[in-house]
Amino acid sequence: MLILGIDPGSQHTGFGLIEQSGERLRAVDCGRIRCRADDPLTRRLVHLTIELEALIERATPHLAVLETPFHGVNSRSLIVLAQARGALLATLGRQSIEIVEYSPAEVKTALTGNGRADKQQVAKMVRLLLSLGSRKLSSDATDALAVAICAAHRWRMDRVGRKDPP
Amino acid sequence: MLILGIDPGSQHTGFGLIEQSGERLRAVDCGRIRCRADDPLTRRLVHLTIELEALIERATPHLAVLETPFHGVNSRSLIVLAQARGALLATLGRQSIEIVEYSPAEVKTALTGNGRADKQQVAKMVRLLLSLGSRKLSSDATDALAVAICAAHRWRMDRVGRKDPP
Repeated sequence: MLILGIDPGSQHTGFGLIEQSGERLRAVDCGRIRCRADDPLTRRLVHLTIELEALIERATPHLAVLETPFHGVNSRSLIVLAQARGALLATLGRQSIEIVEYSPAEVKTALTGNGRADKQQVAKMVRLLLSLGSRKLSSDATDALAVAICAAHRWRMDRVGRKDPP
Repeated sequence: MLILGIDPGSQHTGFGLIEQSGERLRAVDCGRIRCRADDPLTRRLVHLTIELEALIERATPHLAVLETPFHGVNSRSLIVLAQARGALLATLGRQSIEIVEYSPAEVKTALTGNGRADKQQVAKMVRLLLSLGSRKLSSDATDALAVAICAAHRWRMDRVGRKDPP
């Protein structure tokens, strides 16, 4: 199963594609879609949706995963971020990709066992679980891989749960 | 010139198409794109973008107009609304429709001369300016016609301004 994690942003959208086979996880591809900071929002959204379509065509993921929107940031950033997220969701939906969402705390718990872990701890576990060694990763790509790993874990747990009900 | 006003929402998105020729404004079409309240957000966003594409194909507007996002509502509604807005902007951008935005106060001022006018005053002016008589209109369609009228006024003022600089 190929899982595409997405970390939306109106300037940089991180993506991380992982392959899950049984217990094994493997990073297939990761990086970021860059938009020009001085482009108007609409042009950035168009660029995002076109790049995401190309990525879906190339990567053929079975599942896309995003974090649920967070309320902590100021409302101006939140509006811009949510607009990017909406354009991405519509694009995924139109490509008939199944979408799941997890809260930031769920992602942290799945990766580190602690829902309040910091960014460094999460990044360390992403490296460890995907055997990435010292390969250089942007924080957007790391966050995208983290949500993909969370989805892989939850997916496995759900299947185990269904096979062996308590 | 055909101007498409849009009042985004994740359940009902109002639209209003007006034609401007010289001083004259005429309502060509208006209504709302309805999404099923019990559908997941992504399905609603997909429906919105497909319906907007069909509307653009039918109506061939020269300009699309939206209100700038407002900060007054609670962050949960704001996130949902902004996601709908982002999906709509990306769709308009991909169809190469020029987009302009006005703040709610600019729209109210253009329609009534008062930036703090209430919804009823704005709706009354929309009816009057477009000679709509007692025709039944949803509030979403009325709001969409109001932003379209604002764009028509501003467009005319800008052109007058350019022709006869002070």
